[in-house]
Formats: sequence, structure tokens, C-alpha cells
Amino acid sequence: MAQAHWGCCPWLVLLCALGAWGHPKSVDLKAEDVRNCLISPPYLPVTVVNTTAQLTALRQQMHIQNLFAYIIPETDAHMSEYIGTRDKRRAWMTGFTGSAGTAVVTMGKAGLWTDSRYWTQAERQMDCNWELHKEVDTASIVVWLLTEVPAGKRVGFDPFLFSIGSWESYNMALMNSNIKLVSITPNLVDQAWGSEKPLVLSQPIYVLQEAFTGNTWQKKVSDIRSQMQKHPKAPTAVLLSALDETAWLFNLRGSDIPYNPFFYSYTLLTDSSIRLFVNRSCLNSETLKYLNSSCTGSMCVQVEDYSQVRHNVQAYASGNVKIWIGTSYTTYGLYEVIPKEKLIEDTYSPVMVTKAVKNSKEQALLRASHVRDAVAVIRYLVWLEKNVPKGTVDEFSGAELLNKFRGKEQFSSGPSFETISASGLNAALAHYSPTKELHRKLSSDEMYLLDSGGQYWDGTTDITRTVHWGTPSAFQKEAYTRVLIGNIDLSRLVFPANTSGRMMEVFARRALWDVGLNYGHGTGHGIGNFLCVHEWPVGFQYNNIPMAKGMFTSIEPGYYQDGEFGIRLEDVALVVEAKTKYPGSYLTFEVVSLVPYDRNLIDVSLLSPEQLQYLNHYYQTIREKVGPELQQRQLLEEFEWLQQHTEPLSAKAPHTAPLASLLAVSSLAILGCRV
Amino acid sequence: MAQAHWGCCPWLVLLCALGAWGHPKSVDLKAEDVRNCLISPPYLPVTVVNTTAQLTALRQQMHIQNLFAYIIPETDAHMSEYIGTRDKRRAWMTGFTGSAGTAVVTMGKAGLWTDSRYWTQAERQMDCNWELHKEVDTASIVVWLLTEVPAGKRVGFDPFLFSIGSWESYNMALMNSNIKLVSITPNLVDQAWGSEKPLVLSQPIYVLQEAFTGNTWQKKVSDIRSQMQKHPKAPTAVLLSALDETAWLFNLRGSDIPYNPFFYSYTLLTDSSIRLFVNRSCLNSETLKYLNSSCTGSMCVQVEDYSQVRHNVQAYASGNVKIWIGTSYTTYGLYEVIPKEKLIEDTYSPVMVTKAVKNSKEQALLRASHVRDAVAVIRYLVWLEKNVPKGTVDEFSGAELLNKFRGKEQFSSGPSFETISASGLNAALAHYSPTKELHRKLSSDEMYLLDSGGQYWDGTTDITRTVHWGTPSAFQKEAYTRVLIGNIDLSRLVFPANTSGRMMEVFARRALWDVGLNYGHGTGHGIGNFLCVHEWPVGFQYNNIPMAKGMFTSIEPGYYQDGEFGIRLEDVALVVEAKTKYPGSYLTFEVVSLVPYDRNLIDVSLLSPEQLQYLNHYYQTIREKVGPELQQRQLLEEFEWLQQHTEPLSAKAPHTAPLASLLAVSSLAILGCRV
Repeated sequence: MAQAHWGCCPWLVLLCALGAWGHPKSVDLKAEDVRNCLISPPYLPVTVVNTTAQLTALRQQMHIQNLFAYIIPETDAHMSEYIGTRDKRRAWMTGFTGSAGTAVVTMGKAGLWTDSRYWTQAERQMDCNWELHKEVDTASIVVWLLTEVPAGKRVGFDPFLFSIGSWESYNMALMNSNIKLVSITPNLVDQAWGSEKPLVLSQPIYVLQEAFTGNTWQKKVSDIRSQMQKHPKAPTAVLLSALDETAWLFNLRGSDIPYNPFFYSYTLLTDSSIRLFVNRSCLNSETLKYLNSSCTGSMCVQVEDYSQVRHNVQAYASGNVKIWIGTSYTTYGLYEVIPKEKLIEDTYSPVMVTKAVKNSKEQALLRASHVRDAVAVIRYLVWLEKNVPKGTVDEFSGAELLNKFRGKEQFSSGPSFETISASGLNAALAHYSPTKELHRKLSSDEMYLLDSGGQYWDGTTDITRTVHWGTPSAFQKEAYTRVLIGNIDLSRLVFPANTSGRMMEVFARRALWDVGLNYGHGTGHGIGNFLCVHEWPVGFQYNNIPMAKGMFTSIEPGYYQDGEFGIRLEDVALVVEAKTKYPGSYLTFEVVSLVPYDRNLIDVSLLSPEQLQYLNHYYQTIREKVGPELQQRQLLEEFEWLQQHTEPLSAKAPHTAPLASLLAVSSLAILGCRV
Repeated sequence: MAQAHWGCCPWLVLLCALGAWGHPKSVDLKAEDVRNCLISPPYLPVTVVNTTAQLTALRQQMHIQNLFAYIIPETDAHMSEYIGTRDKRRAWMTGFTGSAGTAVVTMGKAGLWTDSRYWTQAERQMDCNWELHKEVDTASIVVWLLTEVPAGKRVGFDPFLFSIGSWESYNMALMNSNIKLVSITPNLVDQAWGSEKPLVLSQPIYVLQEAFTGNTWQKKVSDIRSQMQKHPKAPTAVLLSALDETAWLFNLRGSDIPYNPFFYSYTLLTDSSIRLFVNRSCLNSETLKYLNSSCTGSMCVQVEDYSQVRHNVQAYASGNVKIWIGTSYTTYGLYEVIPKEKLIEDTYSPVMVTKAVKNSKEQALLRASHVRDAVAVIRYLVWLEKNVPKGTVDEFSGAELLNKFRGKEQFSSGPSFETISASGLNAALAHYSPTKELHRKLSSDEMYLLDSGGQYWDGTTDITRTVHWGTPSAFQKEAYTRVLIGNIDLSRLVFPANTSGRMMEVFARRALWDVGLNYGHGTGHGIGNFLCVHEWPVGFQYNNIPMAKGMFTSIEPGYYQDGEFGIRLEDVALVVEAKTKYPGSYLTFEVVSLVPYDRNLIDVSLLSPEQLQYLNHYYQTIREKVGPELQQRQLLEEFEWLQQHTEPLSAKAPHTAPLASLLAVSSLAILGCRV
């Protein structure tokens, strides 16, 4: 999809990519207040932006370039999951601020394509210059272009905002038509925006302290070069386009992107040189020294201006070279300047694949960040338990308090994504986040779903818990417990090394399937060390790479009852070696998220002895790892809460059958160790 | 792969496609008796074929065609799984009779490429004219061609023996070289073979009685035409290349291919005509009448000569038409005569996809054939139980007796594939089948694996059972039970409609993975109504279509201990609607194979209460369906055996804990109904 952002993984896009959860009924609080372009004069709510000036300015630019149409995706030149203000071109053009959607402007018309989550929002923000198309695939944009654009005319696009894949889609579809697809730089929206475009403030780029890195950048560079040497196609260079690739390679961080500690950059790592394309003014003299930027040898970093990357890559590609790229997140802007025969195309670059496997130091760092993150989440849960019954907490203020708790933790560097703090029916909506203006009160009568994470210098976290402070319905308990069983069954799975996540994620669904329930999103994603919270290429999707020792992935089954409630239980887990009875190369997961589930929502009678045993063992681990941290910090109320919430659970039998109950409980000891 | 045969699915190829079972140590009974081309004169065992005359004759033909090299795959023009004598060209050329392998002859050299199963056999059958290449991929053949063939020279192939995929592989690899790949008809090996080539006896083609068909051919034709009309790309014709497509469409059967009741044929079904390409002399007047062959309307079958298909398709393709094909099994011989813009390419034709879903009559027919097949297998197992201890039974004579038992069943039409009757270590070898000359004695001290099936007018069967008549080791019992658990867990899985088999097959592996065991082959394949025993496109591979109600698939996990024993438990199951607690479109399997497993090899303590409950329910079904059949046939000894072998199993606890044992058994009743 043109909308897919790859720099950090398009997790939110994937979350809604499947049917069951993809199109929940829109809970639109002010459904009436949308534009009406059918009456004269049209009705426009106050939230609408007048875009006539923007369109006029863009069409002037299109006229200069002899274009009849221009395509405007909402992404950046690194296919990032989150984009900075300077890249919100589609929002500026259309008035529509939703995170997904593509605009196309012709000399006479203007259209926006977005998915069902955003239809109401688009009708409230766009004026009548814009047609709303309730589709998102390239094919439907192409069909529209074929109708609107006269034969012989040109359709322009910014190649830095097109992935190779989206360029291929448009190109294939228009190949045999009379319309010409034209790559144009610089960006025409920027030209139209002109001096009104917000200035990008130069944020300093800083060196991550050695205590928080898995290896020096020199060691990482040597490792990637050694992979180049071993490659049968003999690459002479690796070109890095994703922001987390360069941040990881040099152990540098920045603040150009929301939620991700990144800075705008590219790297061209050759067999004899290292070129870092970046805003040089963001590097202080110490950082320049750290990078050996004053020399020119193979271990010296030549700092080049960010804007020179295309020219520089093109010049390099004129030599006798082979450039290795990750095709998933390299833009057509760089792809088109490298001759085909000089490209080595893999889905992911060697940096992306190497970064996916954390070494023992990185594992320890990530583990440690999860202990502190658990403290913050537990403090919040304890506080909620006391305050929700008072009726004084809402989704937004709750999320803000959680941020405050996380902010107090050592090495904290802000949230890793926008907190999903959703009460009652809001939790059944994909992508729901409360705002200062629009939020729901938390109540003991409703379930509450909290999906949040933090950035810490040592690691990135992401955890989801669902709680109920009152009396949940039998169905809520059953659904919750089946989601929990899914989490447990996948977490305790033993599988051969190199099994693809796609093959094993069904274990997270089986308990739901059994009774005719399911969830419509993926089951997990990779996560970084103070990098992306949704880190490719690890996870359970079809395009993830096979699981290997040292990878971290989230495990997050859920269940969503449209208009009523939503459940998701998400933990981050490390892939570790499994000790099997018979020798072999087998793996399993070790969960590193350390917050107990809600006892109030667990129907123990649905758990098998093995699942119960696993759960109690996990609770024991939480006690051992988080307990001392709470005690040391004098968080005694929280310590007490933790002890209560991690009491070993035991099998209960139906109340009507006391003898059977006795037998069932006794049988656990027997069955528990058997299979 | 060039070797993949698609007409019926390349199940055996897939069976060995994965590592773990792909390359067992070769148990070569006469390893010393292979050729030695390094000494002078070379040593040649008596099993070697002198191929000098064949090579001379072929090179004469190559010279006439101005070819420097010629590629000879072992397949037929329909990518069939089993091929007739007339298509054993590579065997005639090389002397090597193994089922997989490609030969390439240049003006000076000759090479054979085959996989590890056949290396010894090739060294025993080929003379020193031939190089043996221990690889099978197109890439290694191409590398050899690039070395051996001088620039500017031509490499020929028979386009009817190349799938579209294998043509694409060779074409891509040689595209930028100085060697030209040339499609040549007729086949040059046939030219060289000349009058010595065995005559193909014309086998009569017969009409399957209406009692054994799901629909009349007229209904099937109308259904496919209706799919053509609904197709967005508006095909005007469907071209059928796989032999089971034409057999199914017209409810016709023949005997041209071993194990499959097929006749050489193609069909070009257009919106206004039906053209059947076949050896006309094999159709008697009644069959011609049945086909309405004397008229020319849209529901009349025009019988054309088999050899005219290419010419006829080419002529049709010159019109304003669109031809819909299944690319997996259409050969390049037909593909190359259709202009690209007139092709609608799907992996499988609509006939292949429609055939995959059996209607209720076809389901009833397949079920009935499995009841009778169970009788034959049970008779054999009862006989073995009495005779193996006498030491008089071997793998080959056993398989022959089983064929005899199947032959006595109503509607029997021979075996559906070559029986795998393998004792002890032979069962760990992929593809092992005993011969009259080479076989092993069955013994009470060894496990015995029997994988066999029958063709019946109402259905095709395929079942694998593994038995031990003596005292199995603890490891054998554990491995057997874990294979059984895999079979049970997949069979009882409840899953959403349209889930792909690839996603769910891990349930057949989990119990093995748990202790570090696995198997290296696929987990199952589709099966037909008196058609292919390995019927595409149903199954658990990555290229199978999603599961839908009415499909039949085998479920066949296994475990193989190299040099010691092999276990496989295979049943055929029907995809049926699941009744879930909450409403939804969910499916599950109903096993239609009806032979009990070996109680001697089941460690009941490894089964969960749910698995045990499922197994006992299955045994009850066997009793209900097969029991009356045995009684009615006065097979009283077999009836008695069936009763014994389907006695409900109950959980056993460790012998040392009688109280615990009592509790565990009691708990089954409680836990069994809970989850």
C-alpha cells in the first residue's frame, strides 16, 4: 500500500488490515457536524479548512511542470511510522489530519483516499474542493486517474515519498495507458507551501552513552562490512534509508520524529568509506570527533549534507560498484538513480537484519528497562484502583498520569507511541486515543484497555493490560481468559529455530477460535533498544523474518466486542533457546514485560493445568524481578498490591460439585508435570 | 522446480522438500556394486545400460536442429504425478529409472541431475557416458550449460515438458548470456527412439456411472461458464491441461497413467463451444453420444485429435478472445502460442478450484469408499497380527496381499499409488517401497509402517498406520503418541472459514516440538473422487488454497528415526462447519478414514483429557460405521478385532501412585467437558 510506512514498522496499519477489527462501527460523537456539499451554499462545520489557496498554489506549480495531476502521500523520505511536521504535506493541502490517506490533485479536481476509520474526520475537516474516496488501494486511485486525466497528459509524484513497491504498483497499472507517470523533485507541495511551511528546528544529535549500546559503531561497521564480503553477489556498499538503521549503526539519537529518537539521515557504507548524510549543524564538535569525521580512511565518517544524498549515491553508482539495499523502505528517489545491474535487492538491509538480533548486553538492557517500566505501570494501576471508584478519572488525564509515572523512571525519554487509554466501547475501536477534548470517564462498571510504552536510554517498552474494577460479565471473563490463554500458549510454545512467526501465531488464537471468537489484527511486532517501538523485521506477519535467538517480539492477542468493550493482553518476549527432552535446535519465548494480569477477569476453570502452571511461574518471576525494585524505592503500597496480584492461582471447580472440585484440584499435581 | 509434476499434486516431491527428512542416510544394500568410471576399463555392474546408441541417435537429431544441447525432464505434457511408459524418455536415454531427475545432452557430454535418494541407483544404472550431478535445481543445470555450451550456440527443449515456471527459470537465467534457449517440437528423444519406442496401446475411455458422479458434465460445464461470465477480466475460454480436470469435467475415466484413472486429453471450453482433445479411437459410439459429439452447439462436445491441441489453441487465440489458464500445470507448449494480452493467468483453473469442493453427493461417495477401504485395511492388519509372528511375511508379499484385500472390495479399481510397506529402518526412508527382489521381513521386534490407498469408482483413499506386534521401546511409544496427538490436535481444530492450511498445520507438530522432535515433510494433501490421490490445490502447503467446507484433505504427521524406525499416522478428513458457542463462520475436520491406531504404541498418560475424549469419540465412530459392514460380510474375526481395538481408552497414572491414579482418572470427567 502506498500508505505503508516502513522506517519503523507499519504496525498500526497492520492492526487494522484484517477484516474482523478493521471496520468497527464508528462511534461518532458529533456525526451530524460534517460538511454537506450537496446543498447551496454548502454547509461547512467550523472544523473545516479552506484549501482554495493551497490548491491554487499547487496547480501553479503543476502548470510549470506541465503536469495534469499530482499524487500526495502522507509519509516521509524514510517511510517512517511517525512523521515530523515538515512532512505533513497532505494535511496542509487537504485540511484532513488523519494519519493515513493519499491526496491526488488534478487541474480541475481534488480527491482524498482514506480508510473507514477516518471517513467522518475527513468530512469534518475537508472543504468542498475535495472528493472523499472511501478506498485506500492504489488500484482505485489509478482507476480515478484513468478517468480524470486526458490521454497524453502527465501525472507527477515526489519519488522520495514513494516506496519502490508503490512506484511499481502505479507504474504497472499505468504502463499500457496513455498517461505518463513522472518523478519530480523537489516536492511541489513544498514549492506551493513556500515561506508558510513551518521551519524545521534543528534538533541536536547526541551520542548514546556506551553503557546503553550493544557495540561500538566501529564494531558494527566492521560486522556489516564482513557480511558484504561474504555475500555471493559482492556488494561494494550498503545504502541505509530507514532512520533507525543509521541511529543504530552509529549509536546516535535525535528528536526529529515523534516517539522515535531519530534524526533525518541516510548512510552509504562502502567497503572503504562511510558517508553519513545529515544536517551537519546538529552535530557538535564532540560528536564529530566521536565519528572520526576529520579523517578519510575506511573507519572515518564523512559527514555530508542530508540534501546531497541523491546526487552522492548517483555519483557513486557511476563506478564499478554494487549497492545493497532493503527494498521495503528505500524510496524510489534513491532507487531510480542506481542502475538495475548495480543493485542488490533484499527485503531488508543487513543492518535491519543484524539489529533484529540483540546481543547479550542489549538483551540485558531491554530486560532492565522493562523492570522499571513495570514499576510505572503498576503505580498507575494501583492509583486507578483507588481513584476510578471516585469517578474522577478519565481516559486522557489517566494517560497523562501514566506518562508522569514513566517520566519519573530512570533513563526515561518519553512515551514510545501515543497511549491508547480506552474505556468501555472505545476499546473496541482500532487506533483510539483520547484527546483533551474528547474522552470518556473511567468507571468500575466498564473494562479499561491500556496500551502504552516508554522510551528509555536502555530500551523501548510496549505493554497492554485490560482491567475491570467492578463485576465483569461472564462473557467478558470468558473472552478475557481466552485472550490470556492465547498469550500463554504462544509464549510457552517450543518451536524449531528459524520457524516463521506467521506459522506459529495461530496458537494465540486457538482458544478464541474454539468458541467462535477471533481478532482482526496481527499478533506481534519487534521492538528496539531505544529505537522503534514497532521494529521490523521481527514479528508474526507474513513478511517478517524467521524467529532466531536474541530477537524481541510483542505477543498481543485480543478480542473486541463492537460497541461494548475491547480486550488486549500484550507482552514483550525474548526468543531464547529451549531445553528439550531430546537434543535439537529449539527455541521458546521468555516474557520480559512484568505486570500481572487482572485476577478479576480470569476464569481459572478455563485454564489447563499446563497453562495454570505457566501463569504461576510467570507471576513468580514478576515477584522476583519487580518486587525488590518496589521495596528499594519504598513503594510499599505497590509492593503489597503486587504480592496480592501475583498470588498463585489454583484451579477451581464448579460450585455445585464439591467432590469434583477436590478431584480436579488434586489432579493438577499429576497432570501438571506430565505433558 | 523442473521436476515438479502438477497434474496430480507433487506430493512425493514435497514430502522430501524439507530438510529433516530430506536426506536420510542411504541404506544401500549393495553399495559396492556401482560403476567406476575412474579405472580403465571402467567397471560397470550388470545393472548398467549401455546408452551409446541412444546418445548417437539423439545427437543426430540435435545436429539437424542445429542444437548444441538438449534438456530432457522426466514428466509428461500434463505435469502428471505419475507418467506413462511413453513419457519415460529420460529413463530410455540414461538407463536411470528413478522418478526424479533431469538429463542434459550436449554434442560432447551428457549429464544427469538428481537428488540424494537416487544417487546410488543412478551409479548402478548409468554407464560412463553420463556425469552424475548431485543437485536438482535449475540454477546448477544453468551453470553447467554456461560452462559447456559455446557462445552463440542453441539449447533445445520440448515445450510440452516444461511448465511455465520452469521455462521462466531457464529463460531468466540464460537471458543475458550468449546462449539461446529454443523451444523445439516434436520431441527429439522420440525422434531418436524411433520405431523402438514402445507403442502406446489405446486404452478405452469410459463414462463414470451417474451413481458415482457429483453432477452431469452439462451441469459442470454450465457452472464453469457462469464463473467465466462473472470474472472481471471476461474470459472467453478456459483451457484445461491437467488430466484430472478433463476427467472430472466430463465424468470420463481411462487407464493411460499408473494409479490414476486418466486418459491423455486437453479441453478448450469456450463460451460457445466445447473442444475435447483426445485419442478419438478410445471413445466408443455410446460415449460419443453421451458427449453430444455429433452436434455443434454450445452444449455439444467437439472431439478433436489430441495432437491438434496446440494448433487449435493457436488458431482460437488469433481471435478476439481471452483464455483462462491454471499456470501451475499448463505447459509452455500451449502457453507460448497464446499472446500475453489474451491470457488470464491464475495459479489454478476454475475447474481445479471447483473440483476441490465436493458437493454433498461427492462427500457421501468418498465417505462410503472409506468404509470399504477400512474393511480391506483391517483384514490385512488382522492377518498380519496372526502371521508376522510366524516369520513368513515380508514387505512385498504383505503389500500384495493388501492389494488383494482391496481388490475384493466393491467398486475397486486398483491401488491409488505404490504402497509404502516398510519395516524397521526402511520406514525412515522417504519414498521407500519394497520390490519383489528387495524387501525386508516383517517382525514382532520392529515397527511396521503401511501407507497405502485404493481407487474405487466412488472415491480415492489414502491411509497410513504404523504398528508394533511386540514390545516397543519407551521412545517409540512416546514418538508414536506425540505423532498421534498431532493428528488429533489438527483434526479437532476449530478455525475460521478461509484459513489457509499453512497457518494451522503447526498444530500437528506441537506435541513433537515440545520435546525436540519434528518431521520434514508436509502435513497433508487433497484427494479426489476416483481421481488423484494427491489432488491439488487443497492441503497444508504454502501454495494451497484456503480451507473451505466440502474439501477433503489428508492429515499426516510423522516422525522418523534415521536407521531405526519411521512413524506416520495419516487420515483423510472432510472440512465441515463447526458449531461454535458464539455464532460465526467456523470450520473443523471430520475424519473419514476409519481404522483404529495401534493401542500397543499409545502412551495414554501423554494425552490431555480433551485429546482422549476426542480419540474415544473417533473410536466410537469407527465402531458405528465399520462394525456393521464387517458383520454383514461375516468377517467375524475382524469384527472382534475391531471391538477390541476400539475399546475406550482411559487415562492411566504412574504405577507408583495408585491414589493419584484414581484422582487423575476421575478428573477426566470434569476436565474433559470444560475447555
